[in-house]
Amino acid sequence: MSELKNDRLIRALLRQPVDVTPVWMMRQAGRYLPEYRATREKAGNFLTLCKTPELACEVTLQPLERFPLDAAILFSDILTVPDAMGLGLYFEEGEGPRFSHPVRDQAAVEALGVPDPEQELGYVMDAVRLIHRELDGRVPLIGFTGSPWTLATYMVEGGTSKDFARIKGMMYDRPDLMHQLLGKTADAVALYLNAQIRAGAQAVMIFDTWGGALSPGCYREFSLAYMAQIVRGLERNHNGRTIPVILFTKNGGQWLEAMAETGPDALGLDWTTDLGDARRRVGQHVALQGNMDPAVLYAAPARIEAEVERILADYGTGSGHVFNLGHGIHPAIDPEHAAAMIEAVHRLSPAYHS
Amino acid sequence: MSELKNDRLIRALLRQPVDVTPVWMMRQAGRYLPEYRATREKAGNFLTLCKTPELACEVTLQPLERFPLDAAILFSDILTVPDAMGLGLYFEEGEGPRFSHPVRDQAAVEALGVPDPEQELGYVMDAVRLIHRELDGRVPLIGFTGSPWTLATYMVEGGTSKDFARIKGMMYDRPDLMHQLLGKTADAVALYLNAQIRAGAQAVMIFDTWGGALSPGCYREFSLAYMAQIVRGLERNHNGRTIPVILFTKNGGQWLEAMAETGPDALGLDWTTDLGDARRRVGQHVALQGNMDPAVLYAAPARIEAEVERILADYGTGSGHVFNLGHGIHPAIDPEHAAAMIEAVHRLSPAYHS
Repeated sequence: MSELKNDRLIRALLRQPVDVTPVWMMRQAGRYLPEYRATREKAGNFLTLCKTPELACEVTLQPLERFPLDAAILFSDILTVPDAMGLGLYFEEGEGPRFSHPVRDQAAVEALGVPDPEQELGYVMDAVRLIHRELDGRVPLIGFTGSPWTLATYMVEGGTSKDFARIKGMMYDRPDLMHQLLGKTADAVALYLNAQIRAGAQAVMIFDTWGGALSPGCYREFSLAYMAQIVRGLERNHNGRTIPVILFTKNGGQWLEAMAETGPDALGLDWTTDLGDARRRVGQHVALQGNMDPAVLYAAPARIEAEVERILADYGTGSGHVFNLGHGIHPAIDPEHAAAMIEAVHRLSPAYHS
Repeated sequence: MSELKNDRLIRALLRQPVDVTPVWMMRQAGRYLPEYRATREKAGNFLTLCKTPELACEVTLQPLERFPLDAAILFSDILTVPDAMGLGLYFEEGEGPRFSHPVRDQAAVEALGVPDPEQELGYVMDAVRLIHRELDGRVPLIGFTGSPWTLATYMVEGGTSKDFARIKGMMYDRPDLMHQLLGKTADAVALYLNAQIRAGAQAVMIFDTWGGALSPGCYREFSLAYMAQIVRGLERNHNGRTIPVILFTKNGGQWLEAMAETGPDALGLDWTTDLGDARRRVGQHVALQGNMDPAVLYAAPARIEAEVERILADYGTGSGHVFNLGHGIHPAIDPEHAAAMIEAVHRLSPAYHS
């Protein structure tokens, strides 16, 4: 157990005082970095990169060598869990993820296994252990998973989808079957996330990328209920330390109150929600992470700095804010622009902490 | 001037008493109908269908022959306006819309013309006149346009986009240029919509498909402000009749109050917003149109009916509700399922109007 030399992220997620607002970026280990592209080239393909702990560790640490980030996030893919459930994940160049065996009927749902994370997902746990060791307490390591609903969209559609025709057809026509699928997926995700904590993840985040495509009632029933179940089952005290959990539903700005009620430490926000409003709505219960539009990073550094200042002011004084983008950094962003954002957060935020 | 035999839509949009909740569907003249696919086949391609008034009239009327809908909506494409501004619209099979001359710099913005709707868009006005005559007052004809921001996304990106990298780059880096482009587009749209009213449109709708991709501040500055300008400039009294205007920002559920303040008669809602909540927030100022998830139509008729009942109950008693989908009907939907929805609205809604 290494002591954390920089624990700003953990403290901010727990709404404890900090000197500076911590900052990290979703997809900070990613294609916008030339060193990432080189490692991916060396790996041959994306899935090998995910499944080789040494390479996953290498790319996880790359952004930390470049920028003074306040957290590392495990490099992996949310679809490793359905892959381990037997769906056969593969990637076609320029096509996004695909499953050889999508789940579209009762028999397929019943055939799904709940993987043992130390077996079928052992390569992820090995990566977490390796990264934790290599980090040596420099900053906390964030573990993560996709939400059951988000994973299920890929499992039923067989890949990415624009209108979610198949899964919504199943949800509206066979809610019983949908619940059976989500229940198994939630069990798999809960085991997976707890295994990451035991392997060394010091905070965890649940990514609900597609919950925002649902009606309010369906969101509560088919996405939030399963995230709540996972949050309840998390081992949030590990070796005497609190492991904060962040819940993020993209396009979920209308449902922050319901999300906060499920008991996470923090909510992730995309840029469509005003951060100050969000704090007034749920800031008594949770910390907030976000929420700069990733597209701001296309602009000149002076414009980026102005937007950082606006967002810091929007949240206001006191702890409980983790600066981040509202979604993953785009592949075409100049790394120098990311540097400008991070530098501005560290330079401008002390005024909000006294 | 034909008298309207069925004016439920107009009355509901103006929050006047009705016997039955009116219902129509976004993209009701579309690919889910075999008769539409036959006409499109006959036309040879989508753009010819849009640009031939007799064919546009034919497909506009097709859903009314099949279903007892309470409104017709002009068959056209939102991108005819930028096409008339000189961008060269074309469609590649299975690829979506493209522009030969996207607008990406000062010179391109300055070169943009504001088209005379009776000249460059005369084929649309001819279609409106023809449809109005053929409808002969059966139901009102809805005219429409894309919002300036939504049109600008296609104009700058050159087609559809997932992350709006180019237009957001321009917006954040060159807000002056962005405003110049939006100003010209808003002028073009205002002329276009007023010309549709003069040609016979009895209600109009502004589709802001991509305003929901913006931060709250950018939404107000770059999308809503221009829609407000168009609403202010609309000829809302034509030949002694009030022409209601509907404002619809997809994924705009967080901003209903700001939208209502711009003075439209009604707001369109997608399915991510609770209709009852929306009524409590802005129902004193505007009617509401929506908001069934189009994917409900994949389910069996009994499930569709249950969802219709839920939405009617969500809005509650009294006028001011126009039943619709929260976005366009999907191409794979069985027309019989659309029929079940429409029938259920007409059968179940009288209980809410007494």
